[in-house]
Amino acid sequence: MNHKFLLAARPVAMPKRTDWAYKEEPVREPAAGELLIKILYISLDPAMRGWMNEGKSYIAPVEIGEVMRAGGLGRVTVSKNPKFAEGDYVYGAFGVQEFAISNGNGITRINAGAVPLPVFLGTLGMPGMTAYFGLLDIGQPKPGETVVVSGAAGAVGTVVGQIAKIKGCNVVGIAGGAEKCNYIVQELGFDAAIDYKSEDVRKSLRKHCPKGVDVYFDNVGGDILDAALTQLARGARVVVCGAISQYCNTTPIQGPSNYLSLLVNRASMKGMVVFDYADRYPEAAREMAAWMAAGKLKSREHIVEGLESFPDSLLKLFKGENTGKLILKVADP
Amino acid sequence: MNHKFLLAARPVAMPKRTDWAYKEEPVREPAAGELLIKILYISLDPAMRGWMNEGKSYIAPVEIGEVMRAGGLGRVTVSKNPKFAEGDYVYGAFGVQEFAISNGNGITRINAGAVPLPVFLGTLGMPGMTAYFGLLDIGQPKPGETVVVSGAAGAVGTVVGQIAKIKGCNVVGIAGGAEKCNYIVQELGFDAAIDYKSEDVRKSLRKHCPKGVDVYFDNVGGDILDAALTQLARGARVVVCGAISQYCNTTPIQGPSNYLSLLVNRASMKGMVVFDYADRYPEAAREMAAWMAAGKLKSREHIVEGLESFPDSLLKLFKGENTGKLILKVADP
Repeated sequence: MNHKFLLAARPVAMPKRTDWAYKEEPVREPAAGELLIKILYISLDPAMRGWMNEGKSYIAPVEIGEVMRAGGLGRVTVSKNPKFAEGDYVYGAFGVQEFAISNGNGITRINAGAVPLPVFLGTLGMPGMTAYFGLLDIGQPKPGETVVVSGAAGAVGTVVGQIAKIKGCNVVGIAGGAEKCNYIVQELGFDAAIDYKSEDVRKSLRKHCPKGVDVYFDNVGGDILDAALTQLARGARVVVCGAISQYCNTTPIQGPSNYLSLLVNRASMKGMVVFDYADRYPEAAREMAAWMAAGKLKSREHIVEGLESFPDSLLKLFKGENTGKLILKVADP
Repeated sequence: MNHKFLLAARPVAMPKRTDWAYKEEPVREPAAGELLIKILYISLDPAMRGWMNEGKSYIAPVEIGEVMRAGGLGRVTVSKNPKFAEGDYVYGAFGVQEFAISNGNGITRINAGAVPLPVFLGTLGMPGMTAYFGLLDIGQPKPGETVVVSGAAGAVGTVVGQIAKIKGCNVVGIAGGAEKCNYIVQELGFDAAIDYKSEDVRKSLRKHCPKGVDVYFDNVGGDILDAALTQLARGARVVVCGAISQYCNTTPIQGPSNYLSLLVNRASMKGMVVFDYADRYPEAAREMAAWMAAGKLKSREHIVEGLESFPDSLLKLFKGENTGKLILKVADP
């Protein structure tokens, strides 16, 4: 039997339990050319909240009645497709369910064994790719520059900060709570952390970035983006990766009131979508795997268990309850 | 006797008459190395409102009791500086007054006669330079792309749109009122105009920019910036040149609520300050003068007379009462 979560209603603010329908159905036999995948780990990402909204975006919305879209990692249990063998570990947009049938399009075989499987959803998966290309391609940090990242203890932020350290930058992370702040400084080697829940972010940025912020990698939007804008250095680059503080708002998105700092400081603000870099993922994965092997890049996954917990587990992202990559474990590998 | 306007108080919202002090004083003799300049034309610019505020910006604020800063065009009447001769026409930051004494630093000799003198404060002056470098260096329009400019009937906007036409773009101007809209289409050759006072800017943009906006040159900020953001094409460039709708606000500056369109469309938003291009002004002036001579670039100046009218005349900018470059004529050439 397969169990799955369908989108039942378009949520207002935080998705409620009633925005989901939980369904049980028999697993069908894969046809010729298809494979059956037993899903092991499901990636929980802030972007999922956006996919639940109607309207034009960088990707089509999930329709009402559809299985909720999600990246996942699984094992091929039946293959009628010559490109995949039984037992292969694969990555794909399998959705929030226990089993997926696929014709193999858009699915990637994973070199399991190199690192623990969940890492392929985190540092060597979409969040890692987002961090890598967002920081290096859009942010373009130079040695000695100051890089600030918000959502610093999250799946993307942890990688952004560590890559910036590898590149010789002064790195400041903004995160919520002492535990996360300790983690990014003590464990990941950030130069400083700012706890937005207990500090005046603007003042702390001034303290930790005496020469201004050269690269600001924004995962959160809202007041923190506004605070960062006030501290830009001349020629700064702002990477717009996400705005998690705004995704569950019922009011219109809070625009950055201090955007004229871009003018005063001849700075730029640029958006990025990781899919644009698909042809360069292997290059990035190789380099990041090498950093991991050398102990320069640490990966942390925050694993919650059981498909049924999905509606609650997803909310951890918006409540700031995860450190590292949030993953839903659905079955034992 | 010299007459001048000093900043008397930091204005709230629109500068009031009481924010200024009008002063009369004898003109002193220039010392060795100095020159006496009789000011003919004073440039009135939206940026002047920003200079009246306290606090860090791209230039120091005008202090209380100081002559109000302004660009101007004058004639050297006494020169004790070997670099300038009596009768030279010169451009410099002479301030809002009738006579200026200078040591010659930062002053440029003008090749009077090539075009009418006021053009050196408009199309061949700072506004023209702003348009030229903002559009070409930051906006980087390609032939066939769609360029939208707000404040389109103003000193910068008129030049932005005409250069974009010269570069083979589809050009849409946003301006206030039928007269300005007619002017930019009929006289300047824009492809379309949107009257923000009578039209739904977002809908009209959709109509005139069916493939989206590739370059948005923003002079106004506020709701119009937000409308333009919703219509960006993939890879669009937003040039942040100014935000005249926000300069006289008593509320905080309105941030662009739709800034996440930068993410969805992989677009960038970049600020510019014309002073950074000072070493390239001659190059731009040569090219623009050639376009003017060829009839491809028209210059329009909106001239008001009399130094005493300065407090009221300045407000025309913020009330949208000028078409083309607003200039205060102080004396006959």
